[in-house]
Amino acid sequence: MDKIKVTIWNENVHEKTNSRVLELYPGGLHGFLAQKLASPELDIRTATLDDPECGLTEEVLAHTDVLIWWGHAAHDKVPDEIVDRVQQHVWDGMGLITLHSAHMSKIFRRLNGTSGKLHWREVGERERLWVVNPSHPIAAGLPEHFELPYEEMYGEPFMIAEDAKVIFLSWFEGGEVFRSGFTLQRGNGRMFYFRPGHETFPSFHDVHVIKVLGNAVRWLKPTYRAAYPKTHVPDALEVISPKDFEHVSAGIIRS
Amino acid sequence: MDKIKVTIWNENVHEKTNSRVLELYPGGLHGFLAQKLASPELDIRTATLDDPECGLTEEVLAHTDVLIWWGHAAHDKVPDEIVDRVQQHVWDGMGLITLHSAHMSKIFRRLNGTSGKLHWREVGERERLWVVNPSHPIAAGLPEHFELPYEEMYGEPFMIAEDAKVIFLSWFEGGEVFRSGFTLQRGNGRMFYFRPGHETFPSFHDVHVIKVLGNAVRWLKPTYRAAYPKTHVPDALEVISPKDFEHVSAGIIRS
Amino acid sequence: MDKIKVTIWNENVHEKTNSRVLELYPGGLHGFLAQKLASPELDIRTATLDDPECGLTEEVLAHTDVLIWWGHAAHDKVPDEIVDRVQQHVWDGMGLITLHSAHMSKIFRRLNGTSGKLHWREVGERERLWVVNPSHPIAAGLPEHFELPYEEMYGEPFMIAEDAKVIFLSWFEGGEVFRSGFTLQRGNGRMFYFRPGHETFPSFHDVHVIKVLGNAVRWLKPTYRAAYPKTHVPDALEVISPKDFEHVSAGIIRS
Amino acid sequence: MDKIKVTIWNENVHEKTNSRVLELYPGGLHGFLAQKLASPELDIRTATLDDPECGLTEEVLAHTDVLIWWGHAAHDKVPDEIVDRVQQHVWDGMGLITLHSAHMSKIFRRLNGTSGKLHWREVGERERLWVVNPSHPIAAGLPEHFELPYEEMYGEPFMIAEDAKVIFLSWFEGGEVFRSGFTLQRGNGRMFYFRPGHETFPSFHDVHVIKVLGNAVRWLKPTYRAAYPKTHVPDALEVISPKDFEHVSAGIIRS
Repeated sequence: MDKIKVTIWNENVHEKTNSRVLELYPGGLHGFLAQKLASPELDIRTATLDDPECGLTEEVLAHTDVLIWWGHAAHDKVPDEIVDRVQQHVWDGMGLITLHSAHMSKIFRRLNGTSGKLHWREVGERERLWVVNPSHPIAAGLPEHFELPYEEMYGEPFMIAEDAKVIFLSWFEGGEVFRSGFTLQRGNGRMFYFRPGHETFPSFHDVHVIKVLGNAVRWLKPTYRAAYPKTHVPDALEVISPKDFEHVSAGIIRS
Repeated sequence: MDKIKVTIWNENVHEKTNSRVLELYPGGLHGFLAQKLASPELDIRTATLDDPECGLTEEVLAHTDVLIWWGHAAHDKVPDEIVDRVQQHVWDGMGLITLHSAHMSKIFRRLNGTSGKLHWREVGERERLWVVNPSHPIAAGLPEHFELPYEEMYGEPFMIAEDAKVIFLSWFEGGEVFRSGFTLQRGNGRMFYFRPGHETFPSFHDVHVIKVLGNAVRWLKPTYRAAYPKTHVPDALEVISPKDFEHVSAGIIRS
Repeated sequence: MDKIKVTIWNENVHEKTNSRVLELYPGGLHGFLAQKLASPELDIRTATLDDPECGLTEEVLAHTDVLIWWGHAAHDKVPDEIVDRVQQHVWDGMGLITLHSAHMSKIFRRLNGTSGKLHWREVGERERLWVVNPSHPIAAGLPEHFELPYEEMYGEPFMIAEDAKVIFLSWFEGGEVFRSGFTLQRGNGRMFYFRPGHETFPSFHDVHVIKVLGNAVRWLKPTYRAAYPKTHVPDALEVISPKDFEHVSAGIIRS
Repeated sequence: MDKIKVTIWNENVHEKTNSRVLELYPGGLHGFLAQKLASPELDIRTATLDDPECGLTEEVLAHTDVLIWWGHAAHDKVPDEIVDRVQQHVWDGMGLITLHSAHMSKIFRRLNGTSGKLHWREVGERERLWVVNPSHPIAAGLPEHFELPYEEMYGEPFMIAEDAKVIFLSWFEGGEVFRSGFTLQRGNGRMFYFRPGHETFPSFHDVHVIKVLGNAVRWLKPTYRAAYPKTHVPDALEVISPKDFEHVSAGIIRS
């Protein structure tokens, strides 16, 4: 079977300004995730904001089955044309995983059609993720719940699309709850959002978090990928009765 | 009770180039609809692409309960900043009705998170709309189905959000079917899309079409309208146990 | 305007065996709720398992806009014929509120199509309910969150239908989360489930809980109520081409 | 890889009273479908109403990955205990395909939580099925639309659950439209409903119909199958503060 082609995109900004980030995640979040997700079934590459065209050329995206996205401080630095391109590939079938603070990324907000807003607090509190849809392949192999000892809190209301199919709900030590993992379909493609992953906390070292991401990559692999076919279909499939527009128009105006 | 404040927006482009449009719809689509929907309960104004800021200033939107949108040939002429403004007002609670070819408008595509694409054919064929959710207030007072003798055909697949709550399905003389009326919630606001209304056909003269629009205006009137509250909540509701990040970080890197 | 006709149904079992219940809820849960919800807009009656036909005759249901249901220890004592009758009225448009342990009632499970199962613990812990859909009329007038000091815990996964439109998410002192309030549409009618309300805890004394129930009654009032129309429509709306079944059948068998 | 275990259930009633049915479908609908779906990947058995326990013993269901159901004239002959058993297996993960007139079967109505009602006409008219979700694996390998020359008409409104994820919409020669194929998740299991398949018309001879059923069997194969775990969790995950119920209760009654 063909390998699943994964591209891990990271804005790679915090890595340059906060030594703790590289200490926790050697190689940057993108490099670290590439190493953690490495598997014979996967063909993984990385890209960052520093690369030409953000590393997301038409060529790269056309050869990406699943794109993983981590962004926080530089959402606005990603040009609209690049986001257009990513969105078109999702519509055509490409899988997308948006992580943590990517809830405010352009691509997340565009696919949801919402602001992506939420409440937050960054004190490194404990988070417990509950599996609410245990039969979903993204939850395969997980226990009923698992904990992350140090995380940023994200709280409801979370401004996401109504068709978000929720797989995880989080309980926070400080008193909040959150829809921490959900999928969306948009056109022929699907997105998975997963909440954990703050750059100064060790969540991507957690085996459950990595398990979720590995499951998601496999579940998001497109089985169908195609642009929308031609939209103008001048010929009808059935015989259409003759029309007398003059008569109609005249009748309307008179009546 | 306060009147419902309705703003009818029309790009007003076909009116200038095709005499049939003004013949069918004196005053332009916006003016015609304003007249058809007139009611003591409604306070209706109109706006077009020709107006400064498309007639959709912050002031106008802040005083609009429900915005009706007709566009076709000039979607790209509406500046992104204006669309941002409209979208923000929907997120905060404003109601929105998008009509016919507005399925390719920026605001429709943004709220769905999809391309809005569909198949189409313009020969003036017969359309029969079936009510599939008869208890929805937008369908109040309608028969089980009604017909429009001359319409443009829109066919599936229609690229819309998965949470589209469908009220009408159309049967076309030429052999196609279509999800012709649906609602979406995005943030605190709601949108209704309604398919009929091609500029060269007399659909807005139809009593059922006008009935649907009148129902939709009343159903979309916001009962709650508010921006997202402050997002940073530094203080927890519960006591959070003390954290030793140095220890954690060191432990991770060592292990 | 006509009053909203509300029927409050209670199995009325714990009231007979646990003195604390009547101490907390004089008149029984049904009587207490009737008093708390009393308003000039509402015409409230009560019914219990002790009444003939459970107090839910065809006559009573035909004159009920919204039925409130509290049950726990005697779900199986409600005859299937009565549940059939309630379900038919919901399908035809009647509103239904199911409270707390009614998640295992026949009517709740039938309308969801699921087992209604969940995890539970009864130690009287603190529950905090978060409003996740603040623009929903059922959440009108509520703060961002509110607390109940003593409640039974219900935890995820909660086996409910996928189209449950969630309005409240709960955080529990003991570490769980729960989808505590949601609506469903089934046929022409709608249901609201609300989690709080254990018989030995004082939740129905809470102003927020009563506010939610009052809002729900008003939101669930049917605007349309009708049985499904005749289902056999022998005559087509369009001309159907003549058929030669003998030929077809023969052709299939031969080929 | 293990074969997918498929059980095809047919009420097998029309086969005994209408010679045309066995003429069209030698071996009965169950036998015919078993032959048409035969593949090295599948391990197919059949069962009918004539078998002890309808052929759906606990043993059979425990060894069934996907159950296919055809019923029409004898829905009420299937005992409630058998339906309970099937429903429990769906909740635990088993896949289910309900065909054509099974929209009125007990299991279909229970999983939807609705009446399953629709409009119908039996004159053997032409049906055209449109694929509205082309990326869904159940639509794999299909053209944009396909036709069945002779079918019973089913028309909207179709009383199904709101979370029905629609894959096919039908256009009928006589003027109706219909949601002809949709999936539901209930608990850990999934159902697919597919409209075509009237016993006196040759639809199961159609390559597209058989393609859909073969795709559905593969998509419905459970990847997770488990009963709901124990529901009483007396011990909390977090420390719960001590409670003074006497005080609370007294306080409430006094206030």
